[in-house]
Amino acid sequence: KMLRRVLFTALFMGALPSLAEVSQGHISVVLLGATGDLAKKYLWQGLFQLYMDQVSSGHSFTFHGAALTALEPGQRLMFDVLKKLACPPDESPNRCALLKDQFLKLSQYHQLKTAENYTVLNREIETLLRQEGLKEAGRIFYFSVPPFAYTEIARHINSSCRPPPGAWLRVVLEKPFGHDLESAQQLAAELTSFFREEEMYRVDHYLGKQAVAHILPFRDQNRQFLDPVWNRHHVERVEIVLKETVDAKGRTSFYEQYGVIRDVLQNHLTEALMFLTMELPANVSSAEEVLQHKLQAFQSLRGLEKNSAVLGQYQAYASQVQEELQKAQDYISTTPTFAGVLIHSDSLRWEGVPFLLTSGKALDERVGYVRVLFKNRAYCTQSETLRDAGHSQCKAKQIIFYIGHGALKTPAVLVSRNLFRPVMPEGSWREAVGQSDLHIFGQPLSDYYVYSPVKERDAYSVLISNIYHGRKDFFITTENLLASWGFWTPLLDSISHQPLRLYPGGVENQDLLDFEMVNGEVAFTLAEPVELLNPNGLMPSEYRTIQSKFRQSPLVSAWSEDLISQLASDIEKTASRTVAHSGQFHLALSGGSSPVVLFQQLARHRYAFPWKHTHIWLVDERCVPLSDTESNFFSLHNHLLQNVRVPYFNVHPMPVHLNQRLCVEEDRGTELYAKEIMALVANASFDLVLLGVGTDGHTASLFPQSENGLEGAQTVVLTESPVKPHQRMSLSLPVINKARQVFVLVLGKGKHNITTLLSRVGHEPRKWPISGVSPSSGQLVWYVDYEALLG
Amino acid sequence: KMLRRVLFTALFMGALPSLAEVSQGHISVVLLGATGDLAKKYLWQGLFQLYMDQVSSGHSFTFHGAALTALEPGQRLMFDVLKKLACPPDESPNRCALLKDQFLKLSQYHQLKTAENYTVLNREIETLLRQEGLKEAGRIFYFSVPPFAYTEIARHINSSCRPPPGAWLRVVLEKPFGHDLESAQQLAAELTSFFREEEMYRVDHYLGKQAVAHILPFRDQNRQFLDPVWNRHHVERVEIVLKETVDAKGRTSFYEQYGVIRDVLQNHLTEALMFLTMELPANVSSAEEVLQHKLQAFQSLRGLEKNSAVLGQYQAYASQVQEELQKAQDYISTTPTFAGVLIHSDSLRWEGVPFLLTSGKALDERVGYVRVLFKNRAYCTQSETLRDAGHSQCKAKQIIFYIGHGALKTPAVLVSRNLFRPVMPEGSWREAVGQSDLHIFGQPLSDYYVYSPVKERDAYSVLISNIYHGRKDFFITTENLLASWGFWTPLLDSISHQPLRLYPGGVENQDLLDFEMVNGEVAFTLAEPVELLNPNGLMPSEYRTIQSKFRQSPLVSAWSEDLISQLASDIEKTASRTVAHSGQFHLALSGGSSPVVLFQQLARHRYAFPWKHTHIWLVDERCVPLSDTESNFFSLHNHLLQNVRVPYFNVHPMPVHLNQRLCVEEDRGTELYAKEIMALVANASFDLVLLGVGTDGHTASLFPQSENGLEGAQTVVLTESPVKPHQRMSLSLPVINKARQVFVLVLGKGKHNITTLLSRVGHEPRKWPISGVSPSSGQLVWYVDYEALLG
Repeated sequence: KMLRRVLFTALFMGALPSLAEVSQGHISVVLLGATGDLAKKYLWQGLFQLYMDQVSSGHSFTFHGAALTALEPGQRLMFDVLKKLACPPDESPNRCALLKDQFLKLSQYHQLKTAENYTVLNREIETLLRQEGLKEAGRIFYFSVPPFAYTEIARHINSSCRPPPGAWLRVVLEKPFGHDLESAQQLAAELTSFFREEEMYRVDHYLGKQAVAHILPFRDQNRQFLDPVWNRHHVERVEIVLKETVDAKGRTSFYEQYGVIRDVLQNHLTEALMFLTMELPANVSSAEEVLQHKLQAFQSLRGLEKNSAVLGQYQAYASQVQEELQKAQDYISTTPTFAGVLIHSDSLRWEGVPFLLTSGKALDERVGYVRVLFKNRAYCTQSETLRDAGHSQCKAKQIIFYIGHGALKTPAVLVSRNLFRPVMPEGSWREAVGQSDLHIFGQPLSDYYVYSPVKERDAYSVLISNIYHGRKDFFITTENLLASWGFWTPLLDSISHQPLRLYPGGVENQDLLDFEMVNGEVAFTLAEPVELLNPNGLMPSEYRTIQSKFRQSPLVSAWSEDLISQLASDIEKTASRTVAHSGQFHLALSGGSSPVVLFQQLARHRYAFPWKHTHIWLVDERCVPLSDTESNFFSLHNHLLQNVRVPYFNVHPMPVHLNQRLCVEEDRGTELYAKEIMALVANASFDLVLLGVGTDGHTASLFPQSENGLEGAQTVVLTESPVKPHQRMSLSLPVINKARQVFVLVLGKGKHNITTLLSRVGHEPRKWPISGVSPSSGQLVWYVDYEALLG
Repeated sequence: KMLRRVLFTALFMGALPSLAEVSQGHISVVLLGATGDLAKKYLWQGLFQLYMDQVSSGHSFTFHGAALTALEPGQRLMFDVLKKLACPPDESPNRCALLKDQFLKLSQYHQLKTAENYTVLNREIETLLRQEGLKEAGRIFYFSVPPFAYTEIARHINSSCRPPPGAWLRVVLEKPFGHDLESAQQLAAELTSFFREEEMYRVDHYLGKQAVAHILPFRDQNRQFLDPVWNRHHVERVEIVLKETVDAKGRTSFYEQYGVIRDVLQNHLTEALMFLTMELPANVSSAEEVLQHKLQAFQSLRGLEKNSAVLGQYQAYASQVQEELQKAQDYISTTPTFAGVLIHSDSLRWEGVPFLLTSGKALDERVGYVRVLFKNRAYCTQSETLRDAGHSQCKAKQIIFYIGHGALKTPAVLVSRNLFRPVMPEGSWREAVGQSDLHIFGQPLSDYYVYSPVKERDAYSVLISNIYHGRKDFFITTENLLASWGFWTPLLDSISHQPLRLYPGGVENQDLLDFEMVNGEVAFTLAEPVELLNPNGLMPSEYRTIQSKFRQSPLVSAWSEDLISQLASDIEKTASRTVAHSGQFHLALSGGSSPVVLFQQLARHRYAFPWKHTHIWLVDERCVPLSDTESNFFSLHNHLLQNVRVPYFNVHPMPVHLNQRLCVEEDRGTELYAKEIMALVANASFDLVLLGVGTDGHTASLFPQSENGLEGAQTVVLTESPVKPHQRMSLSLPVINKARQVFVLVLGKGKHNITTLLSRVGHEPRKWPISGVSPSSGQLVWYVDYEALLG
């Protein structure tokens, strides 16, 4: 009856939808948590905005506020909110007043507590539609409730409130969506049992921020300029930043469980990162293409490690937690309130470009931005004193998506004038007249083209409009959510005991939180922090390498990290010396887990290594295909070969996989490898052989209690391992003992017993094959870490 | 007699050498061209400085000026110069006056014109030594003469003036040492017939500039700070610059033959570059180690191409040349007086770091410097308005070897204070007190640690001292010289018809000569030059790709550069689509020269290419070892594979080299490859096959007049080519026709006839195997450039 009246009024006014348009169908919006904070602050306003925008669209609407509160007080609470709905400045006051009146009439409160309540709601919607003779277009259920309530509500909606076939259902969910990969998977699995993927709209309100929402359209509309420069050759770095001045006071019960990474980086900043790094789909309006490309961008991210992040906590946080959560005086919170994280993408486009994600509470200013800084590629021949200050190519070049607040106080897109004049959609963004005294990122505002939105819209209005339009690319799909948690969870796990730098808060932080990138990691710039919150204590790397003797041969020993550095450096020196002398270097490497860190060291830190002149051989191999994760070669490839430039021709995997068969005698793989060695390695004498030791005293793939490969003329042999995969191929002991240098690497407590044993026994290769390693004219050096040596 | 008197005076004074010290031997210095400009300006002063420094060293000296001029006028000319020798400010006037008097007495003029003259000189030296009872330590012959006179003088010295056994000979040569690789080799060969390598001291006076000479010691003494940052991860760019305000007026007869690259870049700037990029020897005082490492640094330089340089000529140059060289009014000089060159080193340490070498005449200021700019690796959390301006890590970080002139007016070493406080040798460099209003490279001088030499020495004094000390690392060895010419000659050849940008000269150049790096090349920043000196005219790339039909299949045609871009883009699109659909992309590539540019395009410009999921197959191969330069795979490796990240496992070279034998039937390489295809490629249907066409109509390695591989069940076949190497392995026509897509690339005028023919003939694979390409269910596309299509 109410609806009929509104429709009648609408017809009468002429400015409102005709019946023909109305025949496109009716939409029921149900706001769960209708009297909560978020609803009060943003959601009702967003729904009202939707109504204002879509009243002439051909759809009719009803709005159903719902909460646990009983009908009468709930109704009163809700209408108190609705009465305060504001008219946007770009709307005529008369029209707005009229529409607000209608909006109130179209809104209704419901108590939704029991299964019965949901059935009743459903019946009311059906009745209304039947009475008004309306076709149903769809239903939106907006979950503005705590996540623990999700499952229950979802079950009720699924069982009682689904619209009839032909009409759609959209459920809108607010974060948090779990607090790590496992919990996110669990929550996703539950929801999936009630809703289909296309029915779920997970909100990340950052995707509704106008500057963030414009990243993809900007990239699309400026393809001509960006195509050549949107890559690692041109981009110097990217900063994605959300700084807050407020702290967590009053919200510690939530915050203490989440911290800044879960609260801001995992969702908001990561989504912005994806918009920057994803390959641009041919059609950026296609939600499907956008989502697919975004998912691919996730797959290119390099895994985070402990040192990918710097973490801080404002000083007052501890006492706030103690007070609000009633903790003891000695309770120490390990929740970070500040984080700077360095992210790399391994895509060809972005490899090597640092993406810095930063957020924190109690900082010096409130501001959010995405800043793409381009490399300075110009050389200005004129001396700087004579240079034209105007649009010199030697000035910084940057594109900034200014999310809001800060010096500009408005969302904006800024493009350095020496870069290009951007194409911007005229209807929605307009060029701003700069305040010339303002400096943004080291440059006066006049150095930029500056655009700001024609209509400033809050994120929720934008998102509610996108829910209405079914633009799923503005929301977080299950795959996207799990990809993001999959990316962040290892870091979250590894930093749970990481020391936090304490900071005073506000402008007093000064440069205490500045950080810098070193070898793909980040560290605070100030090495000696004023105070460090370190609940666990770190092992100081006080001891450097010591040198001694082991089994009559030189022994190098140190903590494992220093030991590996020393070994890498020694291998590099041997390589350089050998290449200088004979033009090439033949290096035979063992499998197993110990060398992995060594491989990484060699790949990342040994710049003078003559890879172009190095031949890589395998000491031993498991009889599995080379690309099997169990293959020694596979590990070598992943940790070393793919990161350095050894010519393809110089890489010599063992031929365990010939004619599609594994280590079959008649394929004569051992002979083939021996031939290859003879053909390339003078006298079959490798320049350097790197060995490990097993807890049973095996080395290479020469195992105790077997004579195979211990003596004789064979260069390469097939052997049997006591552990799976049993079949192995290995260099023989005689060829190992022909090498010019043999380095044996022994790491970890687990090797302490065998190390102790080896220090006592003599030459007994049948019991302990490693004891047979004794180069006939070469040198043997032991690299044993303190844990293996001292237990 | 004269000498005895000096020695006597010396003894009498007490400050001069004792006889015992003198017994270390006598050194005769012969300056050829003793009355020339260089001698007047620098060399006599340098010799006087040597005498002052070494008078107490234990060696005695005589100085022999020589020229073509007759004795009497020559003597007068020479002593006019000697009388004007200056006393350095750091020498006491009394001692200097005394030493100058002695120096004049130890100096003698000789006419050196005929063979007889040289014999006489030699006899005079021998007589003097005998008379004074001195042992001969060595002889220095300094060639300050035009290079055409070198051979003649060298012959005379070798035949008449060699010192007796036990004493050394050092001949000092001034550039130019040839004007390209060939002429340098010729000159070197001639000199080598007279002198041993260790006897020759080729001067590059830049190696005597105090700031340049300090690069290696600086790197050595600051290893602790530099080791972690002296690499591609930390260095943003390096600028090596020598700007002059003077022009070539009065010297065009020399300059017109040489130009700025031969005059400055090939020698001075390249030597500075080597000191920066070479691996630091363990002992930087070892001349041998330094020279060896320098040579290695040359080997890492990436070859220069036409677009590695921007070139200019000051406007007045043309008329100066016309006037001084008596050229006609329409004579156009193509000699560059300005050059900016982008150099890359392919070493692991420097890969990707741009080294910009710039020099020119008639520029806005006179200055020389080597500037190492580090990447900004810091993120400053504090907003910039609040940041401490002092030593913020967010400020630029640089190390500058300031060679001289410019704003500083003195040689200096500058290190940003936010980098580190450098270790400097106290005796020779001292910290300078900054003029705080001065700005150097965008920063106030107070932002740097600034060091300048305790004694400012001109380059020739430094070099003459180094000749005396036998420090060969301060000179250009034959190998070094030829390496440098080997590096520069291809660029010099390719730019001989390159257009030159004309510039007005001085401050009026403004930003006309600014240039920037784009995709590893350089270009002037101002796209529309005021005037361009373009003697040959360039082909405008007006036409973009056109699309049509060829042999009933789609034809894409364009100028070759555009065509290759289009093809690369199409292959990338196919790859992305295929990987999105089936997770992998099987690409079979042909050999030959046409695809080389395509490979480079794919490696450099197609960022979204899914290399990780791409399998690379060979269409055909020559029966040579894979690492032979004739091998198709070798070319593919060099131009594509080594620059992208295709997993080792996804690379499938043809097994033409099994059991150390080439294409032997019984090794069954064709079967092996066929098996590999069957195992990995669904239905043996490649996703994309790239073919070329020979002038005889062959494609893959399927040749006319042979049925081999044209039909039947074989996937891979051995074939015979009419040209060497005859033996080939090839995919068969049936397997090519099973592909989903086949792209045929045809480039160049040489292919016009076969293209025309193919446009007319039908399906006749025995005559023209390419005509048999007709995918049974896939698509065929022709990529033919305008030259092949239109002739």
